[in-house]
Amino acid sequence: MGVIFGVDVGGTTVKIGMFDKEDSLKYKCEIKTDTSDKGSFILRDICKKLQDILQENSLTPNDCDGIGIGLPGPVTNDGRILGCVNLGWGIFNIEEKLSQMFYGVKVRAGNDANLAALGEKLAGGGRGHENVLMITLGTGVGGGVIIDGKIVTGTNGAAGEIGHMPVNFHETDVCSCGKKGCLEQYASATGIVRLTKKYIGEYKESPLYGYKINGKEITAKDVMDLAKAKDELSVKVIDEAALYLGMALAASASVINPDCIVIGGGVSKAGDFLIDKVEKSFMEYAFVPCRNVIFRQAELGNDGGMYGGAGLIK
Amino acid sequence: MGVIFGVDVGGTTVKIGMFDKEDSLKYKCEIKTDTSDKGSFILRDICKKLQDILQENSLTPNDCDGIGIGLPGPVTNDGRILGCVNLGWGIFNIEEKLSQMFYGVKVRAGNDANLAALGEKLAGGGRGHENVLMITLGTGVGGGVIIDGKIVTGTNGAAGEIGHMPVNFHETDVCSCGKKGCLEQYASATGIVRLTKKYIGEYKESPLYGYKINGKEITAKDVMDLAKAKDELSVKVIDEAALYLGMALAASASVINPDCIVIGGGVSKAGDFLIDKVEKSFMEYAFVPCRNVIFRQAELGNDGGMYGGAGLIK
Repeated sequence: MGVIFGVDVGGTTVKIGMFDKEDSLKYKCEIKTDTSDKGSFILRDICKKLQDILQENSLTPNDCDGIGIGLPGPVTNDGRILGCVNLGWGIFNIEEKLSQMFYGVKVRAGNDANLAALGEKLAGGGRGHENVLMITLGTGVGGGVIIDGKIVTGTNGAAGEIGHMPVNFHETDVCSCGKKGCLEQYASATGIVRLTKKYIGEYKESPLYGYKINGKEITAKDVMDLAKAKDELSVKVIDEAALYLGMALAASASVINPDCIVIGGGVSKAGDFLIDKVEKSFMEYAFVPCRNVIFRQAELGNDGGMYGGAGLIK
Repeated sequence: MGVIFGVDVGGTTVKIGMFDKEDSLKYKCEIKTDTSDKGSFILRDICKKLQDILQENSLTPNDCDGIGIGLPGPVTNDGRILGCVNLGWGIFNIEEKLSQMFYGVKVRAGNDANLAALGEKLAGGGRGHENVLMITLGTGVGGGVIIDGKIVTGTNGAAGEIGHMPVNFHETDVCSCGKKGCLEQYASATGIVRLTKKYIGEYKESPLYGYKINGKEITAKDVMDLAKAKDELSVKVIDEAALYLGMALAASASVINPDCIVIGGGVSKAGDFLIDKVEKSFMEYAFVPCRNVIFRQAELGNDGGMYGGAGLIK
């Protein structure tokens, strides 16, 4: 029996999944990410855990067909990490290093957002599609591009970074990246709260105005829930977020012409309520031959990176 | 000696190039495109010409390693044409058909804009780069995407259609595609003339205002030349075209993160004057990790499709 490990390294935890050759998840667990001493213990901890998992399942390293690992930073096609700030890591070839540390087993690495996209393509919302654009609406907006079933890495590992696509050149607020008018300023959880605070003065009848008075923190989930309940301010904000999302996805579609767009991340939990609005905007702005796209909600949540990691090993 | 044919089928002429295995052009010619009887003679005429070229060079079909053919319409990855209005063609597999008509020689087909991009990547402005975005500024705006040295076709053959990327959702004029605010409305030759006519009433001192009075047709080249001579109206128009071009290219770069952007088509003949403005706008709107891009003017002109066609045969 050959097994494959999918490993997703985050700044707080490392998620590890053991898969069979049919990409089916057999076992999963998490360990803490030890970022002390510039993250120098992280790979050692992962190797120890993989060893334990093999033993618990009466397997040896010979039974392991490979390790696919996702990292929170850019990774080149040949396995070089160009720095992972959250882990304290600099530049090195992680495929070579981890393989040396774990019995010469085959290792493939990728950026975590790209692996999440591959995971969704293989086993989640993008199943059955070959050209998938994934967008993740969390604190920020990330993404990944799958063409002909494979991850597009891009020259500096920055393909799929559609959170920083320019969508509004009238914007005066500055994005976390230093530019103005990025998609992330409207469609991320942070962006939704930003828009709400921007418009709140004009909507004194909104329940959210009470939050402002009482000093209660407004969350993107509050705004989404109130939009569903037809609060005028919240509807305005979510409509604006969906407008820019649809535009950015239409712009992306004119570049790569995907057959499926998968929307993930915390904000996407609003489900069809959000996706319907995004799709409406997309259909308005997309070039006709690019409109033939299926919109899907992501299905794998935080496990997407593990699935995508395993998918790198073929 | 093995030769490869690169064939670029347009609505008026068919360009045919004979290449050696090192992608070096040995001979080229043109024949008229006979669009009578729903274009049913086009492939026959091509075969006859290929036969003649082989004979003139004392070669036989056995010496031909393949034919790469570009068509003015979407072509799927497996060689199916989804209709070429300009040729009168419907849906069929051109790779199979042309191969059957020409001694079973290997045939590969692609969209003409995509093949021009591949041609520039192999032998033109994009030489030495693996991730190339090409944009062609002609009557319309077309484009092609090369990732890891290969054409990205997209689900419906519509990848690289960045002429119809939404860039301005305040636009009230309608694009040829039926949408409003497409890049093509600003950055094509037609778009440049449109913008000039839109602003001309405010610039009575511009030489172009004389054109208006005398009923002389304004061309994009006039506007470009006058912008170089610092005519205020023309500078405003070219600056606006370059602004949207830079934005659209920055948006594209956040999707595929290319290392080279090649600008071709009639409007690109303005050279560095235009490219410098586009690059400035790109640098303002592109996500920092995507800014590491080289801008190049296209070098192959109308021969790009032939070069790209030959490049399909490996």
